[in-house]
Amino acid sequence: MKKLSLPRAVEIFEVGIRDGLQNESRRVSLDDKLVFARGLLAAGIRRFELGAFVRADLVPQMADTENLYEAVHQGELVLGKARAFALVPNIRGLERAIDSGAKGIAVFTAATESFAKRNIGMSISESLAVFKDVVAEAKRAKIEVRGYVSTAFGCPFEGKVSPSKPIKVVEKLIALGILEISIGDTIGVATPKGVTEVFTPLLRSAKKTRFAGHFHDTRGTALANALRSIELGVTILDASAGGLGGCPFAPGATGNLATEDLVYMLDGMGIKTGVNLERLAETSLAFSQKMVRPITSRYLQAFASGKVRNA
Amino acid sequence: MKKLSLPRAVEIFEVGIRDGLQNESRRVSLDDKLVFARGLLAAGIRRFELGAFVRADLVPQMADTENLYEAVHQGELVLGKARAFALVPNIRGLERAIDSGAKGIAVFTAATESFAKRNIGMSISESLAVFKDVVAEAKRAKIEVRGYVSTAFGCPFEGKVSPSKPIKVVEKLIALGILEISIGDTIGVATPKGVTEVFTPLLRSAKKTRFAGHFHDTRGTALANALRSIELGVTILDASAGGLGGCPFAPGATGNLATEDLVYMLDGMGIKTGVNLERLAETSLAFSQKMVRPITSRYLQAFASGKVRNA
Repeated sequence: MKKLSLPRAVEIFEVGIRDGLQNESRRVSLDDKLVFARGLLAAGIRRFELGAFVRADLVPQMADTENLYEAVHQGELVLGKARAFALVPNIRGLERAIDSGAKGIAVFTAATESFAKRNIGMSISESLAVFKDVVAEAKRAKIEVRGYVSTAFGCPFEGKVSPSKPIKVVEKLIALGILEISIGDTIGVATPKGVTEVFTPLLRSAKKTRFAGHFHDTRGTALANALRSIELGVTILDASAGGLGGCPFAPGATGNLATEDLVYMLDGMGIKTGVNLERLAETSLAFSQKMVRPITSRYLQAFASGKVRNA
Repeated sequence: MKKLSLPRAVEIFEVGIRDGLQNESRRVSLDDKLVFARGLLAAGIRRFELGAFVRADLVPQMADTENLYEAVHQGELVLGKARAFALVPNIRGLERAIDSGAKGIAVFTAATESFAKRNIGMSISESLAVFKDVVAEAKRAKIEVRGYVSTAFGCPFEGKVSPSKPIKVVEKLIALGILEISIGDTIGVATPKGVTEVFTPLLRSAKKTRFAGHFHDTRGTALANALRSIELGVTILDASAGGLGGCPFAPGATGNLATEDLVYMLDGMGIKTGVNLERLAETSLAFSQKMVRPITSRYLQAFASGKVRNA
């Protein structure tokens, strides 16, 4: 095999508090979210999802997003050099983000029409039209914008997704001036072949845009896909502390790639993340115990046994 | 990144019935093992571990190995073109294997002295001396011999293991005439960097010997390590149906790489295994339900939700 050129550092974009908790049935108190967020920051997380400015009646788990930003404002959650992101579906959401003092937002659409319609109630092109104003307004307010493309590899309604579909949507997000785009395997069907097919053309054509890999572990392939994506040159990976989250389309299945498993692998490969694995694991373990759910992070399962340090 | 040349086919060496069940606390009846084995064969498994000719008082889970081979002899378990393997620790074990009509055996040692002493009660060089007679005798009896090197990446007693240690042991196994050697990450600490460091020199120097990757998922890295090993040119991977097995050194942690997750990834990459994933999953799911334990295969968790086929 030819020699791979791996990056020296990979940034972990932590999505547990939003993407993770949004897919958990158990509700979490504001205080518990704050303790969790403080732990993640202490472990070295620098960019993370804190909430979503969406309709509380539709996504009750995110109803306290204003309160979380108020805690930042009051100094109860000290961000320091870290940056919190919140999902924003439209101009109304952006106004709430601006009012809350958010410095980072994420807009989200999909690679497939059926998923876009079911998830955000708009067609893909309608969503892009909405984002146009959101992105322009956010830029004026000096807010960093992240774009998400869901169902980039497979769709619960349309099945296998051709690489051309996420690539087309990405091109339109780039045209709106979005500088970071997260490519999501929403239902966890991707394998390294699909990862290669989607990321290779994106990385080749990208000038200023950075790409993140957002992998779900529904079929066990998330970390292998993360490995392949960094082999291709991706340097940002979304992950969820403790493996929080699930898959609404496959009840009982695993959700997001667990941050611990990812950091363990990258540490072992000598790739810097800035995240302290032991502090992270302690934080995730304490939070998982509050959630009264089985731990899905493999690393955390081993950590919980108290035997990991011996190895 | 430079283009990777991946193999067209990868052989799955199934270890669930031996390595998997040996590390499960629940005892399994002979009939349940036979149903499981038949299902694995029907799914397309061609080489697999059926048992171990070890002391029944030390490893009670393997006490029925003679009975399993008797079932083969009686036509209750039809192997067809498949080959069953049994672990053999010494000449006494080999005699039992020959008496049972076994066509494949595996000898096992370790990359670290402490593990060898604790696991097989011999030093590494003592084990190699024992294997010399076992391998010679097995060859005379036209029995296929597989070698295992445990703790190739990390040891529960010695910590991190230098790549030179498994490589030295492999050289000695090759000198004994063993044509297939499985390199084991017994406690699941390996990352793709270590996999590269161990397999690259082995694959470069090997003439007739074939290597298998044997990864445990204790820290979530098994499938990523499997991916890296096939990128390096490995074409045999050990895996355990349903993710059966655990880690005696980290109670509650995950054990072997799950065969379903591996086959799902390889299918998606267009790499042939000869294993039918749906048949395999049905077999593993039925067996996991008998074990009354949480399923650890990610794919099987999703399969159990009944939603996998939609994707």
